[in-house]
Amino acid sequence: MGRITARRPVTRIRVGADGTDAASRRPDVLAVEEPLEIRVGGTPLAVTMRTPGHDVELAAGFLVSEGVIAHGGDFRSAIHCGGPGTNGAGAENTYNVLDVTLAPGVAAPEPNRNFYTTSSCGVCGKASIDAVETVSHYDVAADPVSVSALAVTSFPGELRARQEVFDKTGGLHAAALFDAETGDLLVLREDVGRHNAVDKVVGWAVLEDRLPLSGTVLQVSGRASFELVQKAVMAGIPILAAVSAPSSLAVELAASTGLTLIGFLRGESMNVYTRPERITVRTPAAVKGPRA
Amino acid sequence: MGRITARRPVTRIRVGADGTDAASRRPDVLAVEEPLEIRVGGTPLAVTMRTPGHDVELAAGFLVSEGVIAHGGDFRSAIHCGGPGTNGAGAENTYNVLDVTLAPGVAAPEPNRNFYTTSSCGVCGKASIDAVETVSHYDVAADPVSVSALAVTSFPGELRARQEVFDKTGGLHAAALFDAETGDLLVLREDVGRHNAVDKVVGWAVLEDRLPLSGTVLQVSGRASFELVQKAVMAGIPILAAVSAPSSLAVELAASTGLTLIGFLRGESMNVYTRPERITVRTPAAVKGPRA
Repeated sequence: MGRITARRPVTRIRVGADGTDAASRRPDVLAVEEPLEIRVGGTPLAVTMRTPGHDVELAAGFLVSEGVIAHGGDFRSAIHCGGPGTNGAGAENTYNVLDVTLAPGVAAPEPNRNFYTTSSCGVCGKASIDAVETVSHYDVAADPVSVSALAVTSFPGELRARQEVFDKTGGLHAAALFDAETGDLLVLREDVGRHNAVDKVVGWAVLEDRLPLSGTVLQVSGRASFELVQKAVMAGIPILAAVSAPSSLAVELAASTGLTLIGFLRGESMNVYTRPERITVRTPAAVKGPRA
Repeated sequence: MGRITARRPVTRIRVGADGTDAASRRPDVLAVEEPLEIRVGGTPLAVTMRTPGHDVELAAGFLVSEGVIAHGGDFRSAIHCGGPGTNGAGAENTYNVLDVTLAPGVAAPEPNRNFYTTSSCGVCGKASIDAVETVSHYDVAADPVSVSALAVTSFPGELRARQEVFDKTGGLHAAALFDAETGDLLVLREDVGRHNAVDKVVGWAVLEDRLPLSGTVLQVSGRASFELVQKAVMAGIPILAAVSAPSSLAVELAASTGLTLIGFLRGESMNVYTRPERITVRTPAAVKGPRA
């Protein structure tokens, strides 16, 4: 299928010890994340955010995990069909809908049964792909926020330093909200689930009646998935910074909503995937003397 | 609430360069993972696997992410109520069910609407906590498998060496199945979602009609959550090894099902949380000479 990786232009910023920063534009390779709607006998069961490829295995393993099948003979066939809400007739085949046919005598799951997600990216239970994207009350594209690259590079260290439970267990994700102008940490939450950590931060803010979270940066300890971008946008957060890689769909959603997405934020450097003009860099003073 | 961390005895094994291995028993501190059922106006909406604490924020943030609320005034109150399936009367309060009351005029979500999970641990969409645990066709407790500690320490390196897409993107999880007796890698799959990577491995096996996967070890690139243990058990895999930390609920489910759970598998050492007798160590030869 050839869609396991995708290329995107990225602005690479490196904060210099000499008081100036370097920024360069270059291509980056991303892991593809796309929704897969799993159907059994034409009935939609679940949507999972996955990397395309081995989709039939993914659906079969999902059905094993759910106790629907337990032997190879229980699984008869599977086909990619057209877009959601159709039977494939007249709709473009995106290879993001897979319909499984079980063997005769194998009980199909009840249509109204709720399912596990099979993705750590967290989209699931939605009956169809159409339901995946939620529209925000807030317009992060219009936020005039800016933040210095130097401040951004300090956020992961501050996050890590304040992760009390991680220190004891090595097992928790964290999310923290920073003020873009002052660099102050506003709130930090930890959880075994990184999406929960973000929900706790956003929940803190809405209970404090601080939404939309204009002028803030959300720092997360792991990767940037589609769903984390969506959570930021729903809360009006204009900048999301992740220590690790973003997925292709995270970058696409960031681009379409006008969120600034930072990934691979480690040490002195970062990749800015969208709206890089919000990250300010320190430029060299005008050269006074003759060049070497 | 004091349930953010939990202590469990663990067998620490270190593989020695001198041909002998060291094993010791000691306590370990785990991050707690427990289900939270979120209700609105008494109607169950979603179950997420979370670290207890800040539950009201978690529910509020979840409702922001889903577009149900957008301002502090939209959220009226929340209370922990009794066990699932009750209204709290006569049931023990586990603090794992939270009922939210919205402000007058705020539309409650439709009861039949499917929701996002808010957890990277992946349990969601189940209408109640009772539905979380699925019963396996296979009995991993009875599997007579054993594997040498030396072989186990080689698995993460082999996993990493074969992660082709990770090399390009830095953004993919992986899961691989190893033969416990020979140490051979049987299959490896990558995905943006670690649960998907496991589903793809299990799906490969069921399509090859290899279930139950007796005598195998499932190696994963990240942490060990409740759901990954459950996926292993459903496929009849007796040993699960994770590079990072397990959650408390992962250890509990491993203990109750008889799965051997290995965590913090790094370099020459590992923590074995359950059924450690399946991991064989090399003991020193009998001392022949006088002791020093």
